Amino acid sequence: MLVTPIAFIYGDGGILAFPFSALITAVSGFIAFKYTDFGGELRAKEGFAIVTLGWLSASIFGCLPFIFMGAAPSITDAFFETISGFTTTGATIMSDIEGLPHSILFWRSLTHWLGGMGIIVLSLAILPFLGIGGMQLFKAEVPGPVADKLTPRITQTAKILWAVYVALTAIEMGLLMYGGMDWFDAITHSFATLSTGGFSPNNSSVGEYSPFLQYVIILFMFLAGINFSLHFRFISGSFLSYFKNREFLIYCSLITIVTVIISIDVFRRFGGLEQAFRDTLFQVVAIVTSTGFGTADFEQWSFSSQFLLYGLMFIGGCAGSTGGGMKVVRWYIVVKFVFSEVKRLLHPNAVIPVRMDGATVPTSVIMHILGFFVLYILIYGVSVFLLALMGLDMHTSFTAAVSALSNIGPGLGDIGPTENYGGLPTMAKWLLCFLMLMGRLEIFTVFVLFSPAYWRK
Amino acid sequence: MLVTPIAFIYGDGGILAFPFSALITAVSGFIAFKYTDFGGELRAKEGFAIVTLGWLSASIFGCLPFIFMGAAPSITDAFFETISGFTTTGATIMSDIEGLPHSILFWRSLTHWLGGMGIIVLSLAILPFLGIGGMQLFKAEVPGPVADKLTPRITQTAKILWAVYVALTAIEMGLLMYGGMDWFDAITHSFATLSTGGFSPNNSSVGEYSPFLQYVIILFMFLAGINFSLHFRFISGSFLSYFKNREFLIYCSLITIVTVIISIDVFRRFGGLEQAFRDTLFQVVAIVTSTGFGTADFEQWSFSSQFLLYGLMFIGGCAGSTGGGMKVVRWYIVVKFVFSEVKRLLHPNAVIPVRMDGATVPTSVIMHILGFFVLYILIYGVSVFLLALMGLDMHTSFTAAVSALSNIGPGLGDIGPTENYGGLPTMAKWLLCFLMLMGRLEIFTVFVLFSPAYWRK
Repeated sequence: MLVTPIAFIYGDGGILAFPFSALITAVSGFIAFKYTDFGGELRAKEGFAIVTLGWLSASIFGCLPFIFMGAAPSITDAFFETISGFTTTGATIMSDIEGLPHSILFWRSLTHWLGGMGIIVLSLAILPFLGIGGMQLFKAEVPGPVADKLTPRITQTAKILWAVYVALTAIEMGLLMYGGMDWFDAITHSFATLSTGGFSPNNSSVGEYSPFLQYVIILFMFLAGINFSLHFRFISGSFLSYFKNREFLIYCSLITIVTVIISIDVFRRFGGLEQAFRDTLFQVVAIVTSTGFGTADFEQWSFSSQFLLYGLMFIGGCAGSTGGGMKVVRWYIVVKFVFSEVKRLLHPNAVIPVRMDGATVPTSVIMHILGFFVLYILIYGVSVFLLALMGLDMHTSFTAAVSALSNIGPGLGDIGPTENYGGLPTMAKWLLCFLMLMGRLEIFTVFVLFSPAYWRK
Repeated sequence: MLVTPIAFIYGDGGILAFPFSALITAVSGFIAFKYTDFGGELRAKEGFAIVTLGWLSASIFGCLPFIFMGAAPSITDAFFETISGFTTTGATIMSDIEGLPHSILFWRSLTHWLGGMGIIVLSLAILPFLGIGGMQLFKAEVPGPVADKLTPRITQTAKILWAVYVALTAIEMGLLMYGGMDWFDAITHSFATLSTGGFSPNNSSVGEYSPFLQYVIILFMFLAGINFSLHFRFISGSFLSYFKNREFLIYCSLITIVTVIISIDVFRRFGGLEQAFRDTLFQVVAIVTSTGFGTADFEQWSFSSQFLLYGLMFIGGCAGSTGGGMKVVRWYIVVKFVFSEVKRLLHPNAVIPVRMDGATVPTSVIMHILGFFVLYILIYGVSVFLLALMGLDMHTSFTAAVSALSNIGPGLGDIGPTENYGGLPTMAKWLLCFLMLMGRLEIFTVFVLFSPAYWRK
């Protein structure tokens, strides 16, 4: 219903499609609600299914407008575009984005924004209870280094986090309009930034905007990649809470180091110190936060720079942000664990704890994180093989799989920053849809549904 | 000294170089022995250094013949060739192998064979005591599923395993001569097969030999990739011990499945059912066992087939074999662990053990194996980046790093099966030397020497 006014303003034919889509969705929802009986308390087991089905059904109903308005070449494409929206991936099958009706462009960006809203609550309030991939570490409710100020109940937590999310979106929108964007571009780009989605209503993404606008977008991508409970604590007056958080500090160092290394390469190739720095910083932040906006064609950069971006794709943003990937904190704990193993070799009988932010990380959490790491790598490897079987070349398969799994958007090869996913085989698109969903829901949430143990008894 | 007769037979100028190299080595060894005082019992800490320095000094002294005979273009190349020999990698910098003196060709193959001898004892009798990467599971001495028949002391174990190694080498040599090879080719290929090294005295590796000879080499590469304590148990009369060993069964299934998949692709491209099967089987076994012999130019195969070979490079042979890589058993335990994590999500309070060959794998061993897996991937990623910085392209960097780390030999791109490492930058060669050493000694043995904790007190 939200999109109807946009369709009305631009008179672009969405005036029937959107209410009609909303009606179908509402009726289906009502029927599902009416005929489902949960029988009291929800258990973790149902949690996995509800979360997965939530994202899946949003994507199924969300693609109706694309179909009704003939905006996507096929149902596969419509679904791909929608799930890419709700998972805040931002991979598009559209070749002429600017030729799309405004209502569709708005809807694409809105799917990002709603998806991002879902993710914040999911990662800080729901997944920790389900014990996914060590997320219990980032539980927003427990008294602990990250989130002692947040209130205990899920709905309350959700409201607070959403308020932060909405406020940041509004501020970015204001700054973009101040920098000269019209309100439509400002709102769609703000939606895509805060959700780390990356859909842009322009064919050239944000490459044609002024340096000021690009820096604003860099700043808000950077903010969107930070744990939202840190933002909340900042607003509540703990101004230093960012700097007491190890994950945040590593996130900043990572961006700084990689930007410096790549800038040198880009400057050597193309000259222009400020532009080399800005293009690099933009691309580094866009990739590490999994936004995927583009200002430069990084396929023209050296292979070592491309490889660094490829590496960032696996790392992703901070836990509790809207960013995708494995998350900075998991990498931090995995690396610390490896060093603790080295110490354990030298002192086989000593107790060598892995510590973070002043507390010892329990062994079970380390195991969950290692399990997550391994499963990520395994799924990645299998996916690259399947994409290769479907005929994709090396650059495309290697990057499409991680781009989908980490919810980034662009990759290299046929899906580089100047290209799109429209030309991929249908099978490959469905596989990537699956990877986007899996990656967004922290892998295990979806993976567990495929285990025989889940369906037993 | 061993090589001098070969130099004499072929009158190739090695008649002075080899005794002279041996003399230098002996004198240095004597001096080192004389001025070193271990002060009684050896501890694990010294163990790491001794093992690493053992391989390193073998490679330093082992490159003297290449230098004295002017067989390698530079000292870097001579060292690369030698460490590639002793680590049973088989990566060569030589472009015209057939132009080398026979004594040098023999020496190259001998470095493989001696390296392989060292590895069997290292992996079954020494590393388990040092607690490297979960190797305690494969300890040849403990009564257990793998090695209950082996005698308890290291020297005794070593003698038995070496007897198996020598016997298999002799049988292969006999079969190759029966198939028409001359004795020189037969002995050098047998050395390179049993050690899963891969140096061949021919420019075209083993591509020009008859199908019979190729099948013999396939068989012995396959045998060399199996845990040598299983061979010993077979000889001792437990004919079924192979089939009670889970790692062996997975190793066989892996080879079978990958061969079938790739054969289809190769048959479609080139026709010739038997040759497609033989070429594929040869390449699959050569890669998974980390031998790296070549009969076909797999760069002509489809990307999906190449990707499977690339995947096999990470897996490697069985623990306790001369094969490199992470080892089949580690992958098995890592995958079982991931599934146990999925079950743990569904039943957070249940005890869900990871079992192998009828026994529960202790959590500490699982952690060691996960640490090994993670460190492998991390070192791989960093190495690819460094190689990219040195100017190597994507195909070359991606495969050179794993080829060195898993001690395989060939890769793709500039180091494909029809090319060699001679053209790489000097820095890249040194990095690869380091990776070969590290990979061969199960990563941690070398890595631990770089930790500050090692040098403290």
